[in-house]
Amino acid sequence: MNIPASLERLVAELARLPGVGRKTAQRLAFAILRNDTTRAHALAQAIEEVKARIRFCEQCFGYAEDTRCTVCTDGRRDPASLCVVEQPGDIYVIERSGVFRGLYHVLLGVISPLDGVGPDQLKVRELLARVERGGVTELILATNPSMQGEATALHLSRLLGDKVPRITRLARGMPVGANLEFTDDVTLNQAFSGRQTFGS
Amino acid sequence: MNIPASLERLVAELARLPGVGRKTAQRLAFAILRNDTTRAHALAQAIEEVKARIRFCEQCFGYAEDTRCTVCTDGRRDPASLCVVEQPGDIYVIERSGVFRGLYHVLLGVISPLDGVGPDQLKVRELLARVERGGVTELILATNPSMQGEATALHLSRLLGDKVPRITRLARGMPVGANLEFTDDVTLNQAFSGRQTFGS
Repeated sequence: MNIPASLERLVAELARLPGVGRKTAQRLAFAILRNDTTRAHALAQAIEEVKARIRFCEQCFGYAEDTRCTVCTDGRRDPASLCVVEQPGDIYVIERSGVFRGLYHVLLGVISPLDGVGPDQLKVRELLARVERGGVTELILATNPSMQGEATALHLSRLLGDKVPRITRLARGMPVGANLEFTDDVTLNQAFSGRQTFGS
Repeated sequence: MNIPASLERLVAELARLPGVGRKTAQRLAFAILRNDTTRAHALAQAIEEVKARIRFCEQCFGYAEDTRCTVCTDGRRDPASLCVVEQPGDIYVIERSGVFRGLYHVLLGVISPLDGVGPDQLKVRELLARVERGGVTELILATNPSMQGEATALHLSRLLGDKVPRITRLARGMPVGANLEFTDDVTLNQAFSGRQTFGS
């Protein structure tokens, strides 16, 4: 293939990103080439800076530029409500919706015995310590509705069941805009078993 | 939104790329953050280098790291066959298929009066000069099957009609794997008018 070496290198680096195939990587590389140098430099700079500046918040293990993240240092958040998520990125999904005003705790993964990941490889000990410091009245387990996510939630609920007054998990059911015809059996099952009185 | 500033900058830069929405930009930014620093540095480096090293081939206006690109300097290519494309990236699509062994000429755009782009803003004068130097027996107009692409091809065929023995364009019709039900009317029209004898 008659592709210049530096262009090929960029395509290869882009194609390493998850969800980016070779075609997408080429499309992105061409777009970067077509952009002016300032724009490309800004992107390269942003990549270097994000790695240099971002670290894990020492309290919740979300992304932060200081020792603590902007959620943990925000005095208006309710420390009694703690939402447990798998990855730092999950925080931004919940923050975007504006539905939650408490604090977070990131596990940095899920329990997955096949990959050799148990509670000790996750920030479970730190969660236990946080809870034992007191003040948490509700723990919301917002791990993904996957097999590993469910197993992790189950483990946490057993570990912390007698230390927190209330442990909840996000409702399972049909997402807004979904179509009965294309809903899988497990989701349908959960939508039925969790059905609510009309108007409630 | 409680997103660290450097992360937000990276998301914003990624979201400027065509076909990358905010959600995809976030997903990519998180992936870059999760990667180790070497990987992120390699990507940033590749972006800077591609802008520093790649220029337009002085003959065909494809991407090159020297004054001429690797296709133009490849002695095994047939200079009698010249394929005209809109963008440098189009060359790699054709090269990937391995179907063409001639040389290319990149217009660096299409005629689009609404955007103020006429033949003078494209590499049309250079194409004319190349053809007038002689030796080209077939000119393949491989502009996109869009309105502007067709208008550009029409303009070139009129301009060069009496200078090249044969001017062709890529066949129009149904792509492999397509479905009659989902084929648009214009494509179907072209597939019918260009129908070929079975077995030919």
